[in-house]
Amino acid sequence: MPQLSQRAYSMPASPIRKLAPYADRAKEAGRKVYHLNIGQPDIPTPQTMLNYFRNLSLKVIAYSPSGGLWEYREKLTEYYRRFDIALSKEDILVTTGGSEAIIFAMMVTMNPGDEIIIPEPFYTNYNGFAVEAGVRVVPVTCRAEDGFRLPSIEKIREKITERTRAILICNPNNPTGYVYSWEELEQLRQLVADHDLFLIADEVYREFVYDDATFHSALHLKGIEERVVVVDSVSKRYSACGARVGCLVSRNRELLEAALKLGQARLSPPTLEQLAAMAAIDTPESYIQQAREEYRRRRDVVFQALQQVPGVVGLKPKGAFYTIVGLPVDDAEKFCIWMLESFHDQNETVMLAPASGFYATPGLGKREVRIAFVLNVQAMQRAMALLQKALREYPGRL
Amino acid sequence: MPQLSQRAYSMPASPIRKLAPYADRAKEAGRKVYHLNIGQPDIPTPQTMLNYFRNLSLKVIAYSPSGGLWEYREKLTEYYRRFDIALSKEDILVTTGGSEAIIFAMMVTMNPGDEIIIPEPFYTNYNGFAVEAGVRVVPVTCRAEDGFRLPSIEKIREKITERTRAILICNPNNPTGYVYSWEELEQLRQLVADHDLFLIADEVYREFVYDDATFHSALHLKGIEERVVVVDSVSKRYSACGARVGCLVSRNRELLEAALKLGQARLSPPTLEQLAAMAAIDTPESYIQQAREEYRRRRDVVFQALQQVPGVVGLKPKGAFYTIVGLPVDDAEKFCIWMLESFHDQNETVMLAPASGFYATPGLGKREVRIAFVLNVQAMQRAMALLQKALREYPGRL
Repeated sequence: MPQLSQRAYSMPASPIRKLAPYADRAKEAGRKVYHLNIGQPDIPTPQTMLNYFRNLSLKVIAYSPSGGLWEYREKLTEYYRRFDIALSKEDILVTTGGSEAIIFAMMVTMNPGDEIIIPEPFYTNYNGFAVEAGVRVVPVTCRAEDGFRLPSIEKIREKITERTRAILICNPNNPTGYVYSWEELEQLRQLVADHDLFLIADEVYREFVYDDATFHSALHLKGIEERVVVVDSVSKRYSACGARVGCLVSRNRELLEAALKLGQARLSPPTLEQLAAMAAIDTPESYIQQAREEYRRRRDVVFQALQQVPGVVGLKPKGAFYTIVGLPVDDAEKFCIWMLESFHDQNETVMLAPASGFYATPGLGKREVRIAFVLNVQAMQRAMALLQKALREYPGRL
Repeated sequence: MPQLSQRAYSMPASPIRKLAPYADRAKEAGRKVYHLNIGQPDIPTPQTMLNYFRNLSLKVIAYSPSGGLWEYREKLTEYYRRFDIALSKEDILVTTGGSEAIIFAMMVTMNPGDEIIIPEPFYTNYNGFAVEAGVRVVPVTCRAEDGFRLPSIEKIREKITERTRAILICNPNNPTGYVYSWEELEQLRQLVADHDLFLIADEVYREFVYDDATFHSALHLKGIEERVVVVDSVSKRYSACGARVGCLVSRNRELLEAALKLGQARLSPPTLEQLAAMAAIDTPESYIQQAREEYRRRRDVVFQALQQVPGVVGLKPKGAFYTIVGLPVDDAEKFCIWMLESFHDQNETVMLAPASGFYATPGLGKREVRIAFVLNVQAMQRAMALLQKALREYPGRL
């Protein structure tokens, strides 16, 4: 049998889905598993979006233009204006989910062998896209004890080599929930200008900031308009992860033209979902407010529960719906597997994502997990009670 | 402004969409343009599929498993059984359109710098995917005067080097309409076995064969099960190009596991469309029969018209809904542009795809165009009458 490619073997297994076989076996054994391991929200998709499908009058599900339907791109400019981001429709390229926007951004800004700096812990699939694009991820470590804010700009500058082409941030951050301050963005602005880099900002959690935090877009930065590329998606905003509609936003027309060629190769993003996402832009503002409020409540449930466990390290995140917490265990992956294999309470258990897969630096995150606030308050409460009990009973407890 | 990547500049412009600005200007000038340049069928999507959306009862448009919904994969095995192809659901990985199946197939079988042999003229986006995957396309020329059948197997063998990893065929063929004989497939079987290669077969036009032609799948070949990778899509079968649902089929589990990792990075193919495509498998057989009959009639219209033009070279294709024809003109691209810019009859004109972009060998296809049979019989008749008139009036006529 012929050999597969080297990159096939280099693709990282998804740490979020890595423990899925254990969860499957737990379910086969009749156990209920609370899934806090994956960012699949349970918030209903807005009616504006669902109604588009229900009232479908198209006769043919045809290709859209490769860069997306122009009427949808026009409508998206209205959406961005709500965040004081002035765009024209030519600044937007519709993609098949935020995922495709990331791979397009990497492919058009970097050659194989080039380097991209990413603050860690980071959204684990950046690794997979980097393998596909043949680029090297250079991590800059952010620490729980610093609330996961960026290290000093000089620490980041030290990582820049002649192969560095871009810095990639996720803001609000998955998996830490950190929301970048304006000062941090300004520092990044200086850095990319000084070193002739691109700044790629994954802002798919833009709507989800809590308490006194304010979201600032990389598109607000002045003077580096040609360097900024924003990755966006309707997945979390409208709880429509399976719609696969995202976009790439940049005022750098040459970059978008290049990305369009990648888009032309794959022909078209999903057509009906673009029209549904277009309808979703008219969703009443109360929908987002309620979703935000709901995520905030869930976060509070998680933090109230974690505070009761001695040895847990973690801060209340200000954004997104994830958090990375340090647990008083020997090894977080072992603990997560143990919860699925050997632990249950009234036939129920919890699935978390071990955090080491979110770090590029070997050895980091070994005692950390990512918790996603994707279940309703009652389910979150039950899941956290299960976690508390599991932490008491786990043989590898520190 | 920072430089884009080399691959961004290497991405070929789509020859199918290349003349779009000329068409746009013709339309702005009030002209009606018959689009025979793109494979966007006008056949209605079956009600089975549309009704899935109309009756939508899901509350959340959630991710599907990265390899696709298991119930859809199971249902697909039923579809393949109709072609005497026995598969289990684990042999199928659902992709975002056939496009993604092609890039996944290239990425998992080839390293950057490896070579893939493709009979030319070929579906032009193979070039774009090859640039993305960093692999080199090595063409084997098929000729109109041979009906676009494969050249002798020894001619193909000559192209094999130590970097060759795969042979890619499209069967029935876009853009030639050629349907591979069992003997040709057997020869390819021998070749891939002799030289330790993969055989990637793009079979998205499987349903569309005419007259006495019989479709044979690469999945029918015995003894090379681990080497065969089939690319499939619902786009043409159900006239649902904008649904973006395809699949990768292989009995090589290791290969599908590797492709699944690429799938995990991008999370999920569109969920609703998978469910709609699953419903589409129960579309009455008469739907496909009528579509096939309709395409056959259109093909006959095209060939009747072309036979009346002296100097036209082309055979009636037996499959798909395209044909490559040689025209008695100095330069096919110039002729296509001239039709959009300078020609009209009662304010109507035609858009064709110049064929040179379908060849990898420079200089080939310069007097050829691809015609897609994607308009109804009456529109095809009118379009062909316009083409006949344009050929009489074109100043560069040979």
